[in-house]
Amino acid sequence: MLNRLSSSIKNNLKLGKMSLHTVTKDSTSNLSKLDSSKLQITKIKTPKQPLPNDQLKFGQTFTDHILKIQWNSEKGWGSPSIEPYGPISLDPSACVFHYSFELFEGLKAYRDSKDQIRIFRPNKNMERMNKSADRIVLPTFESDELIKCIAELIKLDKHLIPKDKGYSLYLRPTLIGTTAGLGVGTPTDALLYVITSPVGPYYSTGFKAVKLEATDYAVRAWPGGVGDKKLGANYAPCIKPQLEAASRGYQQNLWLFGEEKYITEVGTMNVFFVFKDSKTGKKELVTAPLDGTILEGVTRDSILELARERLDPNEWVISERYYSIYEVEEKASKGELIEAFGSGTAAVVSPIKEIGFHGKDIQVPLLEGEQFGQLTRDVADWIAKIQYGDEEYKDWSYVVADLSEN
Amino acid sequence: MLNRLSSSIKNNLKLGKMSLHTVTKDSTSNLSKLDSSKLQITKIKTPKQPLPNDQLKFGQTFTDHILKIQWNSEKGWGSPSIEPYGPISLDPSACVFHYSFELFEGLKAYRDSKDQIRIFRPNKNMERMNKSADRIVLPTFESDELIKCIAELIKLDKHLIPKDKGYSLYLRPTLIGTTAGLGVGTPTDALLYVITSPVGPYYSTGFKAVKLEATDYAVRAWPGGVGDKKLGANYAPCIKPQLEAASRGYQQNLWLFGEEKYITEVGTMNVFFVFKDSKTGKKELVTAPLDGTILEGVTRDSILELARERLDPNEWVISERYYSIYEVEEKASKGELIEAFGSGTAAVVSPIKEIGFHGKDIQVPLLEGEQFGQLTRDVADWIAKIQYGDEEYKDWSYVVADLSEN
Repeated sequence: MLNRLSSSIKNNLKLGKMSLHTVTKDSTSNLSKLDSSKLQITKIKTPKQPLPNDQLKFGQTFTDHILKIQWNSEKGWGSPSIEPYGPISLDPSACVFHYSFELFEGLKAYRDSKDQIRIFRPNKNMERMNKSADRIVLPTFESDELIKCIAELIKLDKHLIPKDKGYSLYLRPTLIGTTAGLGVGTPTDALLYVITSPVGPYYSTGFKAVKLEATDYAVRAWPGGVGDKKLGANYAPCIKPQLEAASRGYQQNLWLFGEEKYITEVGTMNVFFVFKDSKTGKKELVTAPLDGTILEGVTRDSILELARERLDPNEWVISERYYSIYEVEEKASKGELIEAFGSGTAAVVSPIKEIGFHGKDIQVPLLEGEQFGQLTRDVADWIAKIQYGDEEYKDWSYVVADLSEN
Repeated sequence: MLNRLSSSIKNNLKLGKMSLHTVTKDSTSNLSKLDSSKLQITKIKTPKQPLPNDQLKFGQTFTDHILKIQWNSEKGWGSPSIEPYGPISLDPSACVFHYSFELFEGLKAYRDSKDQIRIFRPNKNMERMNKSADRIVLPTFESDELIKCIAELIKLDKHLIPKDKGYSLYLRPTLIGTTAGLGVGTPTDALLYVITSPVGPYYSTGFKAVKLEATDYAVRAWPGGVGDKKLGANYAPCIKPQLEAASRGYQQNLWLFGEEKYITEVGTMNVFFVFKDSKTGKKELVTAPLDGTILEGVTRDSILELARERLDPNEWVISERYYSIYEVEEKASKGELIEAFGSGTAAVVSPIKEIGFHGKDIQVPLLEGEQFGQLTRDVADWIAKIQYGDEEYKDWSYVVADLSEN
């Protein structure tokens, strides 16, 4: 089944790992490390009043403070500082404006029933942020130290963390190259900053299943590229295909890859499908493998782990494998397509109800009278319980502050 | 010879053209157009003294002023303004920092023997800049109006344009999305700005031929991607492979594509090879076709046109076609590889002397005792004569200012 393109993909990936890892930055150098104990705080004079929950729009309002950490190739990381939220001022020749030396992370802090503030698996985001940084020769850092600094930022703006279920504080760690000068080379200066935004549930009135257009004329990522990293470079090129899909009535792109038209991601999320064998009755939860073209989603990883643990192995197979839009089309025609959903930090899961492909629409079943399928809802519940501390699961929910003490 | 991958490339490209062009912005809207007659100028108080020519480093020093034009989705283009060169201040959530809404152009202004200032084919750069903008849903503009504004910027800083042959004023038009907010969508605000930098010849002591490493483990561009546009997104991911090549003694990457290992570009330049058939004696100048993965270089286009006009068709074939590193390797082994060079605005042409591929080095001939081949030097001469106004050729050299009048 793997044809020439696929074997080429595999070769690329193998070689990529061999070659690109050899220039990873040496974390044992004499440069200053990121050190949370050096954190300096300058508070805002007039703290903001929180907006009513129903006025919160994703990433539109920010809290009172920003965390900033400068880096320089000769000195390493400078002292972290928390300052009043305000503009960033850079030379017009700064490399972030010309050559996309930029990457980010997205994670959320939740207020639990005991007024503790919890972050969901921040170590996974820090690990990915370091991988992204390494790939575009920006500086790496000690994950735990950044998490400690973020915890201080959250505590300082605790009055702006929304309270109700489904609400949270979205955290946006960002790393940009700030070197002034137009030569294309390794940045000698960088700025790591974190801003936070109080946000409501992605679907304010409960789930709303979306229609996707399967997209093969534009390609999000490719072997030997950077589609598995959370770089700014992966985002701007995706808007035009989205507008194109929207003009035909679809909310998002289902990104296909290669002649086989493998399903890779949806919009800016990972994607899962559920199939059911009509002969054996056995179900399969399937998502694309981490082959270098797929973002290593924290929600994706969490869903796979929980599904492997909680779904009955006599009834379920959990697969990370290549699967194509043709396979989905065929399964749908046989009544074997059961469910599909996107996964990501913003929405956790996002149910899918229809997929347009080459002029035909593939219908994806939902529960009778609902906007979601059974597993979609179960997965959302599993993860929400851990995020809000209603259930302890390993070290996934990390308490950064206890507001009940104040 | 076109195998499955190649036909897949062709299908992608065809579909890409069909689909992506339909959402191109409507230039006949009621929004304000970019209008050079509205230009406002605020001069710097203390103009800089020019640096001695031998201290000019590419893109490290800038002139006294910056040209800025704001855009907003409700109003269109604002009044252009020329201001003292200084930092750009943006909200930390600005979309240029997170999702790479950024693109640029590079062109040069030359001082001719009559003290006229000339730009080389600026209409080609403006056309490409508009294509780049359209691809990432940033605003497009009237090319001529921006050129008029740039001309005013150049005139204002004319005392900083270096005089000698080989020296020039590098122009860097830049367009960034400035919308504050973390939603991934079409920017509603943008800033177009132009900065200029006095520069010396790329090779200060004459040509210096470079060694390349043929790179297949990292891939610069892909069909259905954005490799033909001058987006920031195409640059940061290329540095790590360059460091990797440098660690093995090669200055730049020769970017290969696909299982066929087609030659596409070199570093941030287009690339040309010269072959000579050992039976017929006929020579071929060959470069990759504009299939959506190759930057539409202005120097590339100029070389092709001049070569078609000036090289004897009884002796030469000029080809835009797919060709692989295997073909180059085979031709080299038969003594049929004659020359190779990169082409781009910075260096015009950049001779190549060696290519490492899978552990073996392919030698590229140079003229006896020189750092270049015959055609490389001829092409450099052809273009320099037009750029410096020593020869008029069509409308390629555009006079923007006459300093002899002052």
